[in-house]
Amino acid sequence: MSKLSRRNFVSKSSLVAAAALATPAMALAAQDDKDIFIHHVYFWLKNPESAEDKKKLIEGLQKLSTVKTIQKFYIGKPADTNRDVIDRSYSISWMLMFKNKADQDSYQVDPIHLNFVKECSSLWQKVIVYDSVSAV
Amino acid sequence: MSKLSRRNFVSKSSLVAAAALATPAMALAAQDDKDIFIHHVYFWLKNPESAEDKKKLIEGLQKLSTVKTIQKFYIGKPADTNRDVIDRSYSISWMLMFKNKADQDSYQVDPIHLNFVKECSSLWQKVIVYDSVSAV
Repeated sequence: MSKLSRRNFVSKSSLVAAAALATPAMALAAQDDKDIFIHHVYFWLKNPESAEDKKKLIEGLQKLSTVKTIQKFYIGKPADTNRDVIDRSYSISWMLMFKNKADQDSYQVDPIHLNFVKECSSLWQKVIVYDSVSAV
Repeated sequence: MSKLSRRNFVSKSSLVAAAALATPAMALAAQDDKDIFIHHVYFWLKNPESAEDKKKLIEGLQKLSTVKTIQKFYIGKPADTNRDVIDRSYSISWMLMFKNKADQDSYQVDPIHLNFVKECSSLWQKVIVYDSVSAV
C-alpha cells in the first residue's frame, strides 16, 4: 500500500499542492491524519416540530462540544437536498472528529458527555451513530 | 442569536484560543465556516466480504476525490465500536465537506462524479446519504 493510499483525510489545498509535485512528494501531505476517528450521530426528536426542543438539544451539544478530546465538531440539520437515497428525516446531526479511537473512548465516559445524556436524552426518540476510521 | 451560536464548525484549538479571551472575542473564530455543507454517504456492498469489491470502491472514491469543489474528504470503514445505537453494517463511508451548497450541487453533476457512478454503482446494494448544513 503506497503512502498516498494510506492518506485518506486531506484538505484539497494540500492535495493540489502535492499534485503539483512528483508522485513521491504526495507523502508530504498530512500522514498523521490516518488515525482520525469520525463519530457522526443523527438525532430524531420526539417532537420534531418543537423549536424549543430543537434549541435545547443544540444548546446541549454546544455545551458538549467543550469535551477536550474533540478536535472538531459540527452541529447540522438536513440540507435542502432531496433524492431517493437521502435520509432527511432526522432533526439534528452531530459530527465529531477525534485524533484517534482512544480520544473517542475517553469522550464517551467524559462527565460532560454523561451530563449531556442525562439532560437531553428525553428529547430524542431515536439516535443512529456511525463511527468510522480510515479505510485506506 | 449571538455570533458565537452561529459558529458551528470550529477547530478546538481556535475555540480554546477564543475561550481564553472575553466572550465578545469569540466572534474572532472562523465565522466563514457557517456555510459548510457536509455530505456523508454510507455504502453497503453487494458482496461485503469481497476484498476486491471493497478495493474497487475505494479506488473509485479516490478518483472521485479529485472533484475540484471538494474541500475535504474522508474514506472510512466501521470503527471497532459496538453499542446498540451504532450502525456498523455498512462497508464504506464517504464524508465530504464543501464550502457551500452550490459547490455540492456542482459536485453532483461533475463528469468525474457521473463517471464514478457509472463505474462503481454495480458494487453496492444500498446507499444512504445524509446532507447537513449548519443548524446554529
